[in-house]
Amino acid sequence: MGLDETAQKPHDRLNARLAEDMERVNTLIRERMASEHAPRIPQVTAHLIEAGGKRLRPMLTLAAARLCGYGGPYHIHLAATVEFIHTATLLHDDVVDESSQRRGRPTANLLWDNKSSVLVGDYLFARSFQLMVEPGNLRVLDILANASATIAEGEVLQLTAAQDLATTEEIYLQVVRGKTAALFSAATESGAVIADAVEGHVTALRDYGDALGIAFQMVDDLLDYGGSTATIGKNVGDDFRERKLTLPVIRAVAKADATERAFWQRVIEKGDQQDGDLETAMALLARHSAMASTRATAIEWSQRAQTALDVLPASDLRDMLVDLADYVVERVR
Amino acid sequence: MGLDETAQKPHDRLNARLAEDMERVNTLIRERMASEHAPRIPQVTAHLIEAGGKRLRPMLTLAAARLCGYGGPYHIHLAATVEFIHTATLLHDDVVDESSQRRGRPTANLLWDNKSSVLVGDYLFARSFQLMVEPGNLRVLDILANASATIAEGEVLQLTAAQDLATTEEIYLQVVRGKTAALFSAATESGAVIADAVEGHVTALRDYGDALGIAFQMVDDLLDYGGSTATIGKNVGDDFRERKLTLPVIRAVAKADATERAFWQRVIEKGDQQDGDLETAMALLARHSAMASTRATAIEWSQRAQTALDVLPASDLRDMLVDLADYVVERVR
Repeated sequence: MGLDETAQKPHDRLNARLAEDMERVNTLIRERMASEHAPRIPQVTAHLIEAGGKRLRPMLTLAAARLCGYGGPYHIHLAATVEFIHTATLLHDDVVDESSQRRGRPTANLLWDNKSSVLVGDYLFARSFQLMVEPGNLRVLDILANASATIAEGEVLQLTAAQDLATTEEIYLQVVRGKTAALFSAATESGAVIADAVEGHVTALRDYGDALGIAFQMVDDLLDYGGSTATIGKNVGDDFRERKLTLPVIRAVAKADATERAFWQRVIEKGDQQDGDLETAMALLARHSAMASTRATAIEWSQRAQTALDVLPASDLRDMLVDLADYVVERVR
Repeated sequence: MGLDETAQKPHDRLNARLAEDMERVNTLIRERMASEHAPRIPQVTAHLIEAGGKRLRPMLTLAAARLCGYGGPYHIHLAATVEFIHTATLLHDDVVDESSQRRGRPTANLLWDNKSSVLVGDYLFARSFQLMVEPGNLRVLDILANASATIAEGEVLQLTAAQDLATTEEIYLQVVRGKTAALFSAATESGAVIADAVEGHVTALRDYGDALGIAFQMVDDLLDYGGSTATIGKNVGDDFRERKLTLPVIRAVAKADATERAFWQRVIEKGDQQDGDLETAMALLARHSAMASTRATAIEWSQRAQTALDVLPASDLRDMLVDLADYVVERVR
């Protein structure tokens, strides 16, 4: 790593620090996403996996395990498990959201069909369960099986909460825990557990993952309304078009006068959206400081993530995780 | 059970023999299909689960465990696991096949939407993994995780094999093992393993489930072309309309002359189906004895299932499983 490390993003520094482990994770992912009998499977998964997301979740598992002094081979399996669960949920999400773009490329449901996305997603879920069984650690299985259930429950909750202006911040937080934070916290917690860390450290890393995931998702929800001019992975306004009740909208709705309320009812509840509505929505979010207050809440969660790490002994990995928590909210500072 | 037992169907006799266990399975299923946060989940699952399929798969797990002398509590969890996996695959199958009827009622994708079916299916998969972890038996986990992967792989294979006249009997068998036999054999094998049965008995029960599942699916495929006048759970001709290469069709295509081949290419490969085509297809199946030979193959598999049980000590449960293998092919004798 001849680069000036301080100039790199925390994410890239973590990646460099864990390069050898990450290479083993990638090899395992490539091995396990194959299918002897059904060539459609590696086509679809390769499209998504090779498109190369940030691999943030497996990195968290590796970092947590190494931070807790793990020297065995199974953090690799757990990291691959977490990435498979993530990839499976992306495939199903794109079907549910009828998305056409993911990571700047056409989605699998567009390139093949919804059927392939549903079934290949199921295959990746099943593969993730095979992988998580291999370390033979029942506590880790418990964590990852529970995370899978929380993710699915969060997705269903999001589906039924969409279009419902009565959605509260409490429900929003449940959705966010389900769709994002559950896997982040399972990633860090399972890394600590496989390393046989003391309970205080397991809890600390779980709480870090949970808070990091919440901050991460809030930033995502913010950027969907053009929270900054930074490049984002999806189109501005996707959540608006899908009539999702994200935190900025919930807060603007809470402060809406009668006219504004009628606007939200038309565009979100009735789904009657016209040209210029996204711009009106963005203006309302600005007027009620819904963007600024969501930003503040995201930063709070990021700081909560950092505080959770206080009980862990100082190390370069711990510092990188602290920096990572800054980084996820950096785009909206 | 005051009824004349010899007059009952083998399936009902098994149900009566295992009544207490089945009641516990039903209670556990009702408990675990609930969701505190997302009311859509119990609505969708209740629609499907309360519609009351035959509960054949959980019954196989219970029978295998009891047959091997199991006295613990965990066969209940495994039976519920197997039913959850089955229910999840039904939800996703109906989305993939765009079905409108299941067990004589409208499908969930019709009553709610495809989104709900995809996500609630995911939830049931995750719940099944939670359930299978609880007995704390790693070998059982291995069996059930592998079965899940085989099921998903079989579904994808079926998707890509559909519409392809080059599909061989070998590929058909892989599809059938995936979509049906993998869960049947995992049901019986996991029951034997949780009972700590000797290896010979574990193998026997696994082979029984595998052969029973294959016979069961072949009969299903036969009945789809009106193999008998018996009542069937779905509409005659569904597989034809979905252009599935099932065994009767594969065998008729193998014997087709040039005109017939052109017919199959039009209706299966091109999907250009007109009124009267189903009747023509049925006539071709009859002309080439494809129905009769598929029937004979199904009966062979049913007998293979029965032979597998020979190594087990004689008992009323063993006899019921033998009778059950007769029963699954009875409708087409």
